Amino acid sequence: MFITFEGPEGAGKSTVLAMVAERLRARGHAVLSTREPGAGEVGKAIRDILLHGGDIHPHAELFLFLADRAQHVERIIRPFLESGHVRSSVPQPPDPSDTTVHRGEGEHRIVLCDRHADSTVVYQGHARGMDIEELRRLNWLATAGLVPDRTYLLDLPVEVGLGRLKDPDRLDREPIEFHRRVREGFRAEADREPERWRVLDATQTPEQLVEEILADLGTYGASLARE
Amino acid sequence: MFITFEGPEGAGKSTVLAMVAERLRARGHAVLSTREPGAGEVGKAIRDILLHGGDIHPHAELFLFLADRAQHVERIIRPFLESGHVRSSVPQPPDPSDTTVHRGEGEHRIVLCDRHADSTVVYQGHARGMDIEELRRLNWLATAGLVPDRTYLLDLPVEVGLGRLKDPDRLDREPIEFHRRVREGFRAEADREPERWRVLDATQTPEQLVEEILADLGTYGASLARE
Repeated sequence: MFITFEGPEGAGKSTVLAMVAERLRARGHAVLSTREPGAGEVGKAIRDILLHGGDIHPHAELFLFLADRAQHVERIIRPFLESGHVRSSVPQPPDPSDTTVHRGEGEHRIVLCDRHADSTVVYQGHARGMDIEELRRLNWLATAGLVPDRTYLLDLPVEVGLGRLKDPDRLDREPIEFHRRVREGFRAEADREPERWRVLDATQTPEQLVEEILADLGTYGASLARE
Repeated sequence: MFITFEGPEGAGKSTVLAMVAERLRARGHAVLSTREPGAGEVGKAIRDILLHGGDIHPHAELFLFLADRAQHVERIIRPFLESGHVRSSVPQPPDPSDTTVHRGEGEHRIVLCDRHADSTVVYQGHARGMDIEELRRLNWLATAGLVPDRTYLLDLPVEVGLGRLKDPDRLDREPIEFHRRVREGFRAEADREPERWRVLDATQTPEQLVEEILADLGTYGASLARE
């Protein structure tokens, strides 16, 4: 099962993802916690360029995200979903907070990913104005058609998200209108595929969000969330 | 004028390119000598991943080439063609052999580029089997439609090219059949657009190749190659 967490910076995605991973592991599932961009060695190098590369043209930025995604899907996510572990030839990152594999008894194999293809549609498309259908097509090429089974949108007012940030990076210095387009873009994507997305009120505490997610996973596949 | 040099490793592209640049500069033109991948700071970082990134999936490799190309076209090539110099915000590489700008009197602005979009069509398409029309479309996105005015194919038998290599990198360790598909792919591309391509016998000396190229440029635009 491939589960993604989407939403703006400051929504609490990584905190909630880690807590959900812990709960699912405690139930004996094999869980891979990962993120985009920046999983694996190649992903880390790409993430460095994206965050610190200076004057990157929007098209170059887009192709870097797609390169990271293709590598992530083909070398980490898909192998894990198929076999329960990442390919042995993939160097594992030293920082366990980035891509953590728990090789448990593994009733189910579950990938939890912080951002994925939808972020490209929202940030490059809805927010920066690139052609959205073209972006969907490029995502399809990059993922070879892999789509999440479930996507949680951690939705919250723009000002609340920005107010939570302690260390703004390049994206967070965009004007407020950019962040509004991001929020509306995510909500539009969720409306477009309601069977895949669940929109969560991210002004709640992480604990409340985790309970909502586990309850939802319980209805999705009862054995996933059983105590 | 945007001129590209294509062909396999070992064909002498970079040597010939440097000599043509020198001759054109001596005639007072403003010449930018550059290459793909690896021009500029972002390009260098991408090139490092491509050459040393380990187990890179072919789709990730493709998107890295496209990222490099988009950045190169939009931040270096197009600004030079339009204004005669690269954007001041683009950090210039310390190694003058990579991206060298000569700000001469500049009767004409000429970009000489070692590999460009055609290499992607040939290596990823003809040689590795990806869909060639898809690659053309992706190139168009990465270059925003910029196509070379002239492309020189330095063509030579596969064994001759490989025999010239002193320091084989990742690509050069591909099986001989791969290199044959590369050669045939380049020739097929040249046949497809004969008005743009000129196929040169790269078993000649660099001096002979330079004379052929200058003679061709003389018929293309007389003032480019006049003494």
